[in-house]
Amino acid sequence: MWNKNIETYFGLPFDFAEAQIVVFGAPFDGTTSFRPGTRFAGATMRKESYGLENYSPYQDRDLSDCPFFDAGELDLPFGSPSRVLSLIEEQTEAILDARKLPLMVGGEHLVTLGAVRAVHRRYPDLAIVHFDAHADLREEYLGERLSHASVLRRCHDLVGDGKIHQFGIRSGDREEFLWAPGHVSMHRFSFDGLFETLAALGDTPVYFTLDLDVLDPSVFPGTGTPEAGGVTFMELLTAVLAVCKNHVVGCDLNELSPHYDQSGASTAVALKVLREMLIALSR
Amino acid sequence: MWNKNIETYFGLPFDFAEAQIVVFGAPFDGTTSFRPGTRFAGATMRKESYGLENYSPYQDRDLSDCPFFDAGELDLPFGSPSRVLSLIEEQTEAILDARKLPLMVGGEHLVTLGAVRAVHRRYPDLAIVHFDAHADLREEYLGERLSHASVLRRCHDLVGDGKIHQFGIRSGDREEFLWAPGHVSMHRFSFDGLFETLAALGDTPVYFTLDLDVLDPSVFPGTGTPEAGGVTFMELLTAVLAVCKNHVVGCDLNELSPHYDQSGASTAVALKVLREMLIALSR
Amino acid sequence: MWNKNIETYFGLPFDFAEAQIVVFGAPFDGTTSFRPGTRFAGATMRKESYGLENYSPYQDRDLSDCPFFDAGELDLPFGSPSRVLSLIEEQTEAILDARKLPLMVGGEHLVTLGAVRAVHRRYPDLAIVHFDAHADLREEYLGERLSHASVLRRCHDLVGDGKIHQFGIRSGDREEFLWAPGHVSMHRFSFDGLFETLAALGDTPVYFTLDLDVLDPSVFPGTGTPEAGGVTFMELLTAVLAVCKNHVVGCDLNELSPHYDQSGASTAVALKVLREMLIALSR
Amino acid sequence: MWNKNIETYFGLPFDFAEAQIVVFGAPFDGTTSFRPGTRFAGATMRKESYGLENYSPYQDRDLSDCPFFDAGELDLPFGSPSRVLSLIEEQTEAILDARKLPLMVGGEHLVTLGAVRAVHRRYPDLAIVHFDAHADLREEYLGERLSHASVLRRCHDLVGDGKIHQFGIRSGDREEFLWAPGHVSMHRFSFDGLFETLAALGDTPVYFTLDLDVLDPSVFPGTGTPEAGGVTFMELLTAVLAVCKNHVVGCDLNELSPHYDQSGASTAVALKVLREMLIALSR
Amino acid sequence: MWNKNIETYFGLPFDFAEAQIVVFGAPFDGTTSFRPGTRFAGATMRKESYGLENYSPYQDRDLSDCPFFDAGELDLPFGSPSRVLSLIEEQTEAILDARKLPLMVGGEHLVTLGAVRAVHRRYPDLAIVHFDAHADLREEYLGERLSHASVLRRCHDLVGDGKIHQFGIRSGDREEFLWAPGHVSMHRFSFDGLFETLAALGDTPVYFTLDLDVLDPSVFPGTGTPEAGGVTFMELLTAVLAVCKNHVVGCDLNELSPHYDQSGASTAVALKVLREMLIALSR
Amino acid sequence: MWNKNIETYFGLPFDFAEAQIVVFGAPFDGTTSFRPGTRFAGATMRKESYGLENYSPYQDRDLSDCPFFDAGELDLPFGSPSRVLSLIEEQTEAILDARKLPLMVGGEHLVTLGAVRAVHRRYPDLAIVHFDAHADLREEYLGERLSHASVLRRCHDLVGDGKIHQFGIRSGDREEFLWAPGHVSMHRFSFDGLFETLAALGDTPVYFTLDLDVLDPSVFPGTGTPEAGGVTFMELLTAVLAVCKNHVVGCDLNELSPHYDQSGASTAVALKVLREMLIALSR
Repeated sequence: MWNKNIETYFGLPFDFAEAQIVVFGAPFDGTTSFRPGTRFAGATMRKESYGLENYSPYQDRDLSDCPFFDAGELDLPFGSPSRVLSLIEEQTEAILDARKLPLMVGGEHLVTLGAVRAVHRRYPDLAIVHFDAHADLREEYLGERLSHASVLRRCHDLVGDGKIHQFGIRSGDREEFLWAPGHVSMHRFSFDGLFETLAALGDTPVYFTLDLDVLDPSVFPGTGTPEAGGVTFMELLTAVLAVCKNHVVGCDLNELSPHYDQSGASTAVALKVLREMLIALSR
Repeated sequence: MWNKNIETYFGLPFDFAEAQIVVFGAPFDGTTSFRPGTRFAGATMRKESYGLENYSPYQDRDLSDCPFFDAGELDLPFGSPSRVLSLIEEQTEAILDARKLPLMVGGEHLVTLGAVRAVHRRYPDLAIVHFDAHADLREEYLGERLSHASVLRRCHDLVGDGKIHQFGIRSGDREEFLWAPGHVSMHRFSFDGLFETLAALGDTPVYFTLDLDVLDPSVFPGTGTPEAGGVTFMELLTAVLAVCKNHVVGCDLNELSPHYDQSGASTAVALKVLREMLIALSR
Repeated sequence: MWNKNIETYFGLPFDFAEAQIVVFGAPFDGTTSFRPGTRFAGATMRKESYGLENYSPYQDRDLSDCPFFDAGELDLPFGSPSRVLSLIEEQTEAILDARKLPLMVGGEHLVTLGAVRAVHRRYPDLAIVHFDAHADLREEYLGERLSHASVLRRCHDLVGDGKIHQFGIRSGDREEFLWAPGHVSMHRFSFDGLFETLAALGDTPVYFTLDLDVLDPSVFPGTGTPEAGGVTFMELLTAVLAVCKNHVVGCDLNELSPHYDQSGASTAVALKVLREMLIALSR
Repeated sequence: MWNKNIETYFGLPFDFAEAQIVVFGAPFDGTTSFRPGTRFAGATMRKESYGLENYSPYQDRDLSDCPFFDAGELDLPFGSPSRVLSLIEEQTEAILDARKLPLMVGGEHLVTLGAVRAVHRRYPDLAIVHFDAHADLREEYLGERLSHASVLRRCHDLVGDGKIHQFGIRSGDREEFLWAPGHVSMHRFSFDGLFETLAALGDTPVYFTLDLDVLDPSVFPGTGTPEAGGVTFMELLTAVLAVCKNHVVGCDLNELSPHYDQSGASTAVALKVLREMLIALSR
Repeated sequence: MWNKNIETYFGLPFDFAEAQIVVFGAPFDGTTSFRPGTRFAGATMRKESYGLENYSPYQDRDLSDCPFFDAGELDLPFGSPSRVLSLIEEQTEAILDARKLPLMVGGEHLVTLGAVRAVHRRYPDLAIVHFDAHADLREEYLGERLSHASVLRRCHDLVGDGKIHQFGIRSGDREEFLWAPGHVSMHRFSFDGLFETLAALGDTPVYFTLDLDVLDPSVFPGTGTPEAGGVTFMELLTAVLAVCKNHVVGCDLNELSPHYDQSGASTAVALKVLREMLIALSR
Repeated sequence: MWNKNIETYFGLPFDFAEAQIVVFGAPFDGTTSFRPGTRFAGATMRKESYGLENYSPYQDRDLSDCPFFDAGELDLPFGSPSRVLSLIEEQTEAILDARKLPLMVGGEHLVTLGAVRAVHRRYPDLAIVHFDAHADLREEYLGERLSHASVLRRCHDLVGDGKIHQFGIRSGDREEFLWAPGHVSMHRFSFDGLFETLAALGDTPVYFTLDLDVLDPSVFPGTGTPEAGGVTFMELLTAVLAVCKNHVVGCDLNELSPHYDQSGASTAVALKVLREMLIALSR
């Protein structure tokens, strides 16, 4: 009766041992230049997750049959992005060591770099599938090489040409759009070409990074840099379920900023995507 | 000059005698488990209704030609759902006794049960057309049988198998989805099948209950449990106008929660639906 | 490393065995007639408590030296106040059985009745010290005897005349103010008379119920029924510390409504009061 | 049973004939240069007034014994301040013709001019008692002579030197402060001198205009131009009750702007002042 | 180093001489009957414009190659719509005199009339392309002929029959819809017929006025009168780019109301439309 | 007529040459651990400053007679506190080189360190007067030595024992309160002792750093870490004017967080303090 107060996503009480997936939060927004606040995403999502059903009518499966472990939020310092990335890398490595799938909830998009470092070390032929409104391919941003706006460029430093597949991109500076061809496979505005890409990837290990601002701001206003002209929820859901059928070895979703989500609808969208990913990635 | 301060929907001054329809509010959200606030829907809608035009370009008719009476908000106690339902039942019965059509504005969805009880007594072969994101078919919820999450199940207790026709459903627990076949006619995700259903209903008396969260949260964020993947406004409008051509003998719309509607756009949507229903249901 | 995600007030990890005080949440606002939302108080306070220092310069003591146990939020049904009160009574009784001090965080003020029932059974000569803007002495409210507006009247049913000492009262209907003399000791507007009352109580066991709206709304706007003309924070702090020197055998604080606390300042006030109470009540 | 939906302040159903006071709203903010929104004050106050008690522990009287009539909100055009003032003047005159006391709820402060015109015609020796943070004595503002910032100057055009008594003033341009001596009696920062002023006024008919931003913004943040360093609620209440003992022949309160009152505490303050004024002005 | 603090749209430092387009703000909402606030649109957009990229992937051009001059916000009085329109007319005329293209950012829609007056004087055969949810064709509104609700009717007074082409209209009173045929070319609900209209216009000089509430409120909730059933962002973008290929000699966008845009997504949409217009109108 | 859009505090157009004081913004909140947002303070204050009068009735002087130069907001990178501090140090040094007084508007409190470094180099016997709710004396915070929570400790590293005079302190961890005696002069809770301190300082050059959260949250809710029990506005104003009579050679005010200031009252308070400082520091 007198257990300490435990709070887990969707109120589900799985133990570490039985879990296939480990969810953890990376509450960092220290390089966010415009409007901070993604640091609050994980805690807000966990608290609101009690309001969502566990059953998915889309997949006709129940989350209570899909054991995952909620490791809570990492304790990250502000003021030092490189230390933050190291802490994320360590956490991801520990999850991989336990032969489980890491699913990180950001935070700003830079956090992806920490996870990709750990995953890439284990899977040197790693491909990255990237859903986003923004290309995030800058060489540097405001003088910093470790920035949310350059995170995929830093990932490219690791994985090299032809390994990054972007979808939904509709914003960036001119240099990013000029640099992309030959280095990354950028699909603008929509998910056109996704199924062909996934088929071509075959058994290649995939890191899947989902910046939720790929959604149209009508569906997902609660983010730091809303960018009109995005995809609908059903388009995203279809695309996410497709990716999860490939050989996903690490993944994240990021860029929910609860301050800009007065209605709570963006948080609810993020949670629904998380639920569908957890179910789809459980075998 | 010195009349008391009268406030009616759309500022329209119809008398009871001339009205075909009676609108009343049921400001109750006492079983709302997640985020309360629908109790404020009716008063907020009435206040904001002065900002909406009376003319409908969709039906090319003007609300000022469609006499309805605004009976204001019921005075409902909190803490006793069964007393609340009795008061709604009485009000509905009085409207039916006056040979007028009751149109209730919730409040949480549980209020529908009170109105259905009165309407069903008068129309024993009553069918129910139900638009919603949620199935609301639980046998009980948190130990209570009278709950927003079980309201259609309670209606089923009254009307029996094959009488309830659900559209747009995309959320519920597994048991609800398993129970539905054989008991209710559940159409998931969209209005597919609506026209066939309406044609088959023919002259059967219909109670029409519209949970506005059937809309996508991009269109209608101002609700307690936003559920992504819903219908568009034009899809809803088309469906509502179709239902109103059948033999509707009672109806409601519910689940607007003004606290989560910072922009007022959800309230405006609810009012536009109300206007179109009032026009469509006037003969 | 792979412990489940534990969240406790102020992030303090005390075990049940070592604790002198047990804090628990009663997230209920089902009889709130005006503006609901106190159900969110406990979860919001716990989440925000990480931003407050553990050290009190007022008492020159640190909360980390004052072992308390955080039992989380009770799981309360909506729609049935009497069941809610029974669950609170059970929880309070279990804490008393373990020879610890119950400190409940509401929720609306009605929750106090559940705790007082349990405490009064153990301490039949119980006195109640009550800080509030509202008298809460109605015989019934909107036809209900179990209501936030009648909670102290229900407590009076238990403890009898001369046992309830109210301070800061500045709102109520005429009947409450007429009834009070001879039944309760009502001190209007301020804490005048508190020190004399506490001295007179001597070793009498005291239940201390603190409705935070006794504070002026400038200090504590985040509540359902803000009532101008209240006390300052320093007046309240002085009064709270004085009460805590008496023989307190149960206590609560209630009526924070986070929805109306856009700045977070009301939540911070509630947490600071909680910290000071926890320190002052630790021996 | 089928009366139209009537909404009156505090839900009190007095008839015009029995009323001593007539309350009406002047929802105009058309010259507000900084942050508009006071047009919403009256409707918001009326709606929220159901949450306030009718009994005043300060005066030990109940509003239900103080018959007043709520004439609702005037229907005012935007874009033409002079037409707005004429409509207010007419309404005030009609109330005076019926031998009742006009109590207007603004709106921006300019609305006072319309009421003062009517009252001054009937009481040529009218004095004005003015509580405000701002002097409102500009000859013109942004090229307009009819402006919230020049309303007391326009009143001075009517009543002449030595008739206007200002209290709490702590903002204005240099010219206003230079002009005041010899023309109006300006008391800066506080109510110092109020009792002497009221005594000296004796039986002189008084128009009492209360700009609620005389309160400190901690107490009353919900206004277009918050000005730190104001009075407390108890200081204001004491001053208001004192003025109401004089020969008040017309009055208003104004400048609540609900958009800037997220917590509702400012609206509650305005209502409490209104209740106390209604009781104090009832004989 | 010690230049004064300059703030321009998108932070771009073009000089007047090199500019082809001059952007200026018309921060007026003085006839807004329902919910004011569009006066804040220009200042808010300018401040937030630093968060948007200069590069358009839709047109594959960069705003930094499209010299425009930001003339800031006009200093407009409140309380006198006719003076406001004169000031806008003067500003527009000065821009035309300098042989540059005026692009005005409202404000409420009435501001369009000032600009159209100046443009029409120079181009007597002017046609107007009008995107809006509302017809704005009233002869008068609340007794005023100069109103946001009658602005296109006033434009019609200038340009005459057959010159105004409306798209997306879905709201108005019955009289507007009855009056339109024979006077203006009204396309309801969508952009159907736009390409034919633009082709037929050929080299005719066009004033393009874009009321952003033509967008569906899901995309653009931040406006005073949200009207469900509007166009998507991509539909609008396509239509805007099409219009900009015609002979546009003056233009505006209006009716953003930042108060109702808690997430900032509406402001971001307005800025994206502005960016695309600036690029498309640069030759 | 065609000057670029200039925005300066209070709309005052002073040139650099004539200015005695240079105001600049330091929009950085990169080490804020709890609730970020102070980066928006300067831009928000500048925009809202148009709503405040230039005349001070407290000092009977007008800001238009007190030439200051507004250098706008520094362009600061996120993710590197040490680079941020260097940029602030350079700016401060340039102002001192021009023989003007630097007045910085934060941002989080860490920015003070950059300014103090520059000022201390020029005035080696510098004393610091510090108003704050928080001691900010930690040796490090979350592993970082450059943090808002350790900024006065870093200043102590520069100026040494006995040079820092703190007032209003009511929060910190135990170690800070234990360390303070012998190193800094800490005055808890209030301004008691301020006049003696200022007298004792005599002609000593003073850096004055004002964390606005020294105010009670009722007066100043718009800050990241509201701490109940603070000073009133009039107490602060009196204290600020007293300090400004000493030999102030550099100063700042900081920690306004506009996101938590829904009413705008906190921004208005910050601006009023800024106005009074600018006037008081002008000779």
